[in-house]
Amino acid sequence: MSELLDYIDKNHDAAVDRLKELLSIPSVSTDPHYQNDVQICADFLVDLIKNDLGLKAETLETPGHPVVFVKTGDEDVSNPDAPRVLFYGHYDVQPPDPEDLWESPAFEPVVKDGKVYARGACDDKGQVTCFLEALRALKATRKDGELPCHVTLVIEGEEECGSEHLPKFIKDNVDKLGADICLVCDTSMWNATTPAITYALRGLLYFDVQLHGPSRDLHSGVFGGTLANPCNILARVLGNLFDDKNRINIPGFYDEVDPITDEEKSSWDRLSFDENEFLGDVDAKPYGEHRYTTLERRWGRPSCDVNGIYGGYMGKGAKTVIPSFAGAKVSFRIPSSMDPVRTAKLFTDWLNNQPVADLKWKLESHGVAYPVATPLDSPYIQPAIEAIEAIAGKKPALVREGATIPIVADFKQILGLDSLLIGFGLESDAIHSPNEHFGLDRHKLGIKTLATLLENFSKMKKV
Amino acid sequence: MSELLDYIDKNHDAAVDRLKELLSIPSVSTDPHYQNDVQICADFLVDLIKNDLGLKAETLETPGHPVVFVKTGDEDVSNPDAPRVLFYGHYDVQPPDPEDLWESPAFEPVVKDGKVYARGACDDKGQVTCFLEALRALKATRKDGELPCHVTLVIEGEEECGSEHLPKFIKDNVDKLGADICLVCDTSMWNATTPAITYALRGLLYFDVQLHGPSRDLHSGVFGGTLANPCNILARVLGNLFDDKNRINIPGFYDEVDPITDEEKSSWDRLSFDENEFLGDVDAKPYGEHRYTTLERRWGRPSCDVNGIYGGYMGKGAKTVIPSFAGAKVSFRIPSSMDPVRTAKLFTDWLNNQPVADLKWKLESHGVAYPVATPLDSPYIQPAIEAIEAIAGKKPALVREGATIPIVADFKQILGLDSLLIGFGLESDAIHSPNEHFGLDRHKLGIKTLATLLENFSKMKKV
Repeated sequence: MSELLDYIDKNHDAAVDRLKELLSIPSVSTDPHYQNDVQICADFLVDLIKNDLGLKAETLETPGHPVVFVKTGDEDVSNPDAPRVLFYGHYDVQPPDPEDLWESPAFEPVVKDGKVYARGACDDKGQVTCFLEALRALKATRKDGELPCHVTLVIEGEEECGSEHLPKFIKDNVDKLGADICLVCDTSMWNATTPAITYALRGLLYFDVQLHGPSRDLHSGVFGGTLANPCNILARVLGNLFDDKNRINIPGFYDEVDPITDEEKSSWDRLSFDENEFLGDVDAKPYGEHRYTTLERRWGRPSCDVNGIYGGYMGKGAKTVIPSFAGAKVSFRIPSSMDPVRTAKLFTDWLNNQPVADLKWKLESHGVAYPVATPLDSPYIQPAIEAIEAIAGKKPALVREGATIPIVADFKQILGLDSLLIGFGLESDAIHSPNEHFGLDRHKLGIKTLATLLENFSKMKKV
Repeated sequence: MSELLDYIDKNHDAAVDRLKELLSIPSVSTDPHYQNDVQICADFLVDLIKNDLGLKAETLETPGHPVVFVKTGDEDVSNPDAPRVLFYGHYDVQPPDPEDLWESPAFEPVVKDGKVYARGACDDKGQVTCFLEALRALKATRKDGELPCHVTLVIEGEEECGSEHLPKFIKDNVDKLGADICLVCDTSMWNATTPAITYALRGLLYFDVQLHGPSRDLHSGVFGGTLANPCNILARVLGNLFDDKNRINIPGFYDEVDPITDEEKSSWDRLSFDENEFLGDVDAKPYGEHRYTTLERRWGRPSCDVNGIYGGYMGKGAKTVIPSFAGAKVSFRIPSSMDPVRTAKLFTDWLNNQPVADLKWKLESHGVAYPVATPLDSPYIQPAIEAIEAIAGKKPALVREGATIPIVADFKQILGLDSLLIGFGLESDAIHSPNEHFGLDRHKLGIKTLATLLENFSKMKKV
């Protein structure tokens, strides 16, 4: 094993250079302005995997952004009977805004104090390259350049805008995607020295809700007090989303929420989660649904956030206008027992029942993602625990995650596959925020751990 | 008199050309991006008045945008003992946004179907030029080119951003501004054929209220449910602004609001205001404080509007973020008995008492403007009624206005002057909105009426 780890140590500078090149491509999937860059990023990865790793790689089209697809043949692996791994990651990134808060431009990666700074540094380009570099190291150090087991890579380009086309892609490619276990690298470590295996993710539903009123913007002096102002009424509706116990105020909303079991509560208590440290890092204090701890609210309870709100005059100074419409981005995170389609209907029904004078809703769904939970007795977990223990020197934490990786539910529902969620991010990496970054030590830890995990799988029999 | 009116008829095409030239200057006062254009506009007017009308004109500096100042000497007028008129208007305009809703560019004036379309066409460049063209016609048709009475013109450049520096300007120039009556042309006719004299204006207070939370934008999955989201909480606060009778929910808010007298109610009833026509024009229905008619809410009651709201992700598609702050533009219109300074304090106290978890307010005032009322028995009203009757062929309506002209209160408080508010706009002119326009027939009506009014004044003795 030490030849593998030595190789990774000695070649890490080059690995970081390759990561920086990838990070310099602004593959923002949600904004059509970047459409061409998303394609460039996909092509860049295919070239790198084909020419550099010598594996079959291609872009597969979807109605949206393409999927980077890689699949080993029997000639590529030493043990074709070992469990086949379906690796999932994404090469698209969040928008860079607010750009003026970045200390260096979002798409001009720089290394500072042992961290690489750029949009996507952690989420998910940094983590994807952990796996690619693991493959490179395995090929470079193993007999005949063979990988220890079959791997299929699905690196999508629409994770940050809801993975709209990936479910159909999976359905259309069930044969190509045959595997025994999924490996997903888009999550966080428990803390700076303790990797985690995440066994449950919350689901997501996301809406753009607009309230339309007068046929044009109006002078607020001439019309003020005579008609319903969409900004005023939208605020009132959104202000009604929570009751005085900070519970979501939608009838029936909690009907499907399973209580957090005593066993799970005890297990989470043992993690010694420090809510003041977690929130103090962003100058915030705990706030939310009464009677639950911060960790419980984050992992086991639904949440609702207005992710954005807009309407009327948003520039500098004053403009005395009554806007013709106002809108908001509203999303819900839901724990594993909730159905996002049912929840979406509860929300839109609730909106349509709110008193809004003569204003009219325009509701647009930006997609739903199912929550997911992987059984803790899955046979693939033990090799992962051992790989982490071997590299990090300690057992991983077994955790849930408040965030959403929609595709994990699709892998389960369509392919019948459980997923191992092993990531090397930290909450402090500022993903989705200005100055996103990724520690190079964790990048290297990721490469070593994933390479070791594939080695461990090669020693298993197929389940 | 008919030589004067004939001149105005025959030279109106040239007057419209001059107006279009003025409208092509984007003198948006609230946005620093247009700073230079505001100065260009002021200089343009000075040149026009000096070279074209032969009157003394200059720009007078303020800490903000300059004032265009014009003052006749005794050599310019035939009757120096007639009442001296202080004319007030503004050459600045509202921002053009949303620009994509303009059928022709906001600063490329076009004449279509007898109307001129451009930002400022009515508010207030169109109305200002009514007075300038009246002066031109009087000089062209009177003996020795003398005006009938003294006029002082104050054409300011900050009306659309709160006239911040004008009160001090008036205080600093009390001597220069000596006059007997103010004439303000920034209001509307009662309907397309009936001019109005406006005797009361609502006051205004305008705030930018921001609620700040976490030190950076956060991932809504990782943090959703654990802390206070500024968008959610701001919506809740703004949603509390009104009670279930659509009354403003701030303790003490209505203490200074005088009831509308029975006499005034009767007088307004005789105007046959059609709320369905007024609001139907903008596809809206009556909505507001219970127990008041639409006209009463508009003229005699306070109103509160969220003029803009912003926070988090406002672009296309979805971004799963908890924003670090959210903000709103909030303004109040107040009838003549209310004190805007006291009202502003009530509002900010109320905001500061709202529960906002650990979030912090950043409040910025964009100024207050006092409401105003001119006595209906002012001796200057009869000559105005007669001028209107002579030109329009009917008596004017005597009305209030829901909108605000802050300077009218300053003229009263600082100079002791009442104002005649005689304007030629219509509600349908889309001021502050895309496709603002001004009917050329009303432009000509304004020129004739104002010229006649100055003639009528010259027949008065000083009061």
